[in-house]
Amino acid sequence: MSEAQPEFLFSTLESAATATNRCTITEVSVTPVAFADPPLLNSVGVHEPFALRAIVVIRTADGLYGLGETYGDEAHVARLNRAATLLVGADAFNINQVSALVSESLLEDSGLGGHGTGGMVTTTSLQDRVLSAFDVACLDIQGKALGVPVSTLLGGAVRDEVAFSGYLFYKWAGHPGQAPDAWGEAMDPSGIVAQARKMVDEYGFTALKLKGGVFEPEIEAATIEALRVAFPGMPLRIDPNGVWTVETAIKIGKRLEPVLEYLEDPCLSIADNAKVRAAVNLPIATNMCVVSFNDVPPAIAAGSVDVVLSDHHFWGGLRRSQALAGIAETFGLGLSMHSNSHLGISFAAMIQLAAATRNIDYACDTHWPWKLAADDVIVPGALEIEGGSVRVPTKPGLGVELDEEALARMHRQYLECGLTKRDDTTYMRSIDPEFQLTTPRW
Amino acid sequence: MSEAQPEFLFSTLESAATATNRCTITEVSVTPVAFADPPLLNSVGVHEPFALRAIVVIRTADGLYGLGETYGDEAHVARLNRAATLLVGADAFNINQVSALVSESLLEDSGLGGHGTGGMVTTTSLQDRVLSAFDVACLDIQGKALGVPVSTLLGGAVRDEVAFSGYLFYKWAGHPGQAPDAWGEAMDPSGIVAQARKMVDEYGFTALKLKGGVFEPEIEAATIEALRVAFPGMPLRIDPNGVWTVETAIKIGKRLEPVLEYLEDPCLSIADNAKVRAAVNLPIATNMCVVSFNDVPPAIAAGSVDVVLSDHHFWGGLRRSQALAGIAETFGLGLSMHSNSHLGISFAAMIQLAAATRNIDYACDTHWPWKLAADDVIVPGALEIEGGSVRVPTKPGLGVELDEEALARMHRQYLECGLTKRDDTTYMRSIDPEFQLTTPRW
Repeated sequence: MSEAQPEFLFSTLESAATATNRCTITEVSVTPVAFADPPLLNSVGVHEPFALRAIVVIRTADGLYGLGETYGDEAHVARLNRAATLLVGADAFNINQVSALVSESLLEDSGLGGHGTGGMVTTTSLQDRVLSAFDVACLDIQGKALGVPVSTLLGGAVRDEVAFSGYLFYKWAGHPGQAPDAWGEAMDPSGIVAQARKMVDEYGFTALKLKGGVFEPEIEAATIEALRVAFPGMPLRIDPNGVWTVETAIKIGKRLEPVLEYLEDPCLSIADNAKVRAAVNLPIATNMCVVSFNDVPPAIAAGSVDVVLSDHHFWGGLRRSQALAGIAETFGLGLSMHSNSHLGISFAAMIQLAAATRNIDYACDTHWPWKLAADDVIVPGALEIEGGSVRVPTKPGLGVELDEEALARMHRQYLECGLTKRDDTTYMRSIDPEFQLTTPRW
Repeated sequence: MSEAQPEFLFSTLESAATATNRCTITEVSVTPVAFADPPLLNSVGVHEPFALRAIVVIRTADGLYGLGETYGDEAHVARLNRAATLLVGADAFNINQVSALVSESLLEDSGLGGHGTGGMVTTTSLQDRVLSAFDVACLDIQGKALGVPVSTLLGGAVRDEVAFSGYLFYKWAGHPGQAPDAWGEAMDPSGIVAQARKMVDEYGFTALKLKGGVFEPEIEAATIEALRVAFPGMPLRIDPNGVWTVETAIKIGKRLEPVLEYLEDPCLSIADNAKVRAAVNLPIATNMCVVSFNDVPPAIAAGSVDVVLSDHHFWGGLRRSQALAGIAETFGLGLSMHSNSHLGISFAAMIQLAAATRNIDYACDTHWPWKLAADDVIVPGALEIEGGSVRVPTKPGLGVELDEEALARMHRQYLECGLTKRDDTTYMRSIDPEFQLTTPRW
């Protein structure tokens, strides 16, 4: 060091230390919100008219705030609120401390009262899914305090845009009793092809995924084949959410071998997917059989998976998702991302994580196009899908800004819609009383 | 946000962004140094009178510097220098970019010219062992620029002190032709007990490790038993560096079952250690069979290891070592740290990593007591072992400061000592021409 440097260094450190010392958490709010959701069909029923999310806002002593987003089911919100209370006084720079406090908040949690994640993934880690939104919010604060995007905190961006796939759903024209939505009906191969065309035209996606498990497997296979004809060379995937038998999965898998990029959760168990994987010459992807760190060893031992579709909402946030990425790299597994219906905070978190993760091997899933543009809690414009990709925000933190008014409006929408948890099955039965939840179905 | 906050936020971000933008790397120096080392015996020979290290100093546009330390063998130094050239202009905040540049620097590397890590661990990843010191130096810079200790960059400290084990060696009184060193001779059980007493008295260690593989296994087992008598209740380990046959390892392992905390690298292969592990009721630890991410899947499949002794010098630095910690946690493996002869920069890096790693399950290894206090490149006093532990520095970065004069002195010592690589075997043969390198030996 030259003689001049130590003094300069000292003054630098002084100001930087001030910047981080003030990141003591003073307030944590958890706000459930609702946003309009189209009638998207899946193996357990149909999306209700509103999707629920919880918005976490952490504020620090000196006026910074960080954002997190997670499931909005009431059981989950109750857990978030219990954890939130303990986090006041913690250091937003110490994710390990935050994790320990979340753990403490769950000590008395019986796990009863509902899983709370509003989906079909029910064996995730309670600790990890409660931690996630707080981890994201703390990273947002850290980035803002330090003047770096979250991707930098995660090791540095390896790409400046993140590719997503167009997520296709069989759907009704609109919710019963409502006017058709902008997407219209898609109840057969040609309907899905039209939906894909609209989605590709509007967003430029370069990969497509079909949510299956809705119709007879032969129809869904024909839908994929119709997509292949309409979009030659486009990577295609199908996800029946585990409702196929091993026999069906092998039959359909073999039929689609020349067409699919990967086959996602054909069956519901590690053992069954291992049988499918052994018989079908396609990569097997999952976000249902490997959903927590506990699932990794048996899945690897069984040889049941080629691609893990990670999801920071149930893998414990962005740092824990990086641990999963390390495991995937070590064991030669592919990596991509799963999506539930989400708003902009989750989208930004996914993008920052993907930006810093070398081994994101496939375009990630997102429900983003299914959301009305007006329905969000962030200031619009930060995240736009163009050419199938989103440019990674380079502003400090997540790179998205809370719109307080929008948050209030979306919370009112939550109160008014009357939903307190996601229940696709009950909603489906209210329309089709004959609907049965059966796994496997075919 | 209140109305006043956005403006405050902006001014904060402005200054913080300035702090990080200036972290473009402008200079990377790699300086080989030598420090006095006692005649410590091991399975491949004996430590030479000097141990070699390479000191990496990365400087940034605005006068910050970051420190890294690694192996000092000339083949490794040559690789470090090739990488160093490419790193000028890179962003010290983007470890992923640094990693890619290191990879680029190795594209033409044949791997010939020597392994360069000066030890017995020869199957480590070339990429990871070259990356390591740069990763550490960049994290040091990041911490200084942001005003946070490296432990914070790694997720936040979970402990404020890190426990180390007392590392016992059979040794001669001094190097041939030199006066006895401060430790004196330890060539039998009572000599080791005396050495242990001195080490525990001076440093307060609460765990002890014996470097084995030197004498007949029965003598080494008797040494451990003598330590047990002298230090009731003290966790004890032995590490014969893989020179035992499976048969010997099982025999000695069973004998020491009531005494050992774990048995380290009894044999040299994953397969052989799996056989020992199946037959002996002791945890099996390794830093020789699982030394890179490539080794993890076969070791887990074979069931050959309970405890991975990580070492950021060959696991790719602190961030990659965190990935290893995630793997260990996921697969139910214990975790601790291996040590080669090292100086203060490596020690600080180990301590920062251990501070932020929840699942460091055992007191870590260190050669620290074997080094003369005067032999270092950092300003003294930052790292002291008391009660067997070191308090984690909380200053920005690694928490240690470069002593330019000492670096120059240690480099002169390197030039004067005439050594260019570690070679315990040749040195031993210069003293005992009958010495043979045989594995397994017993």
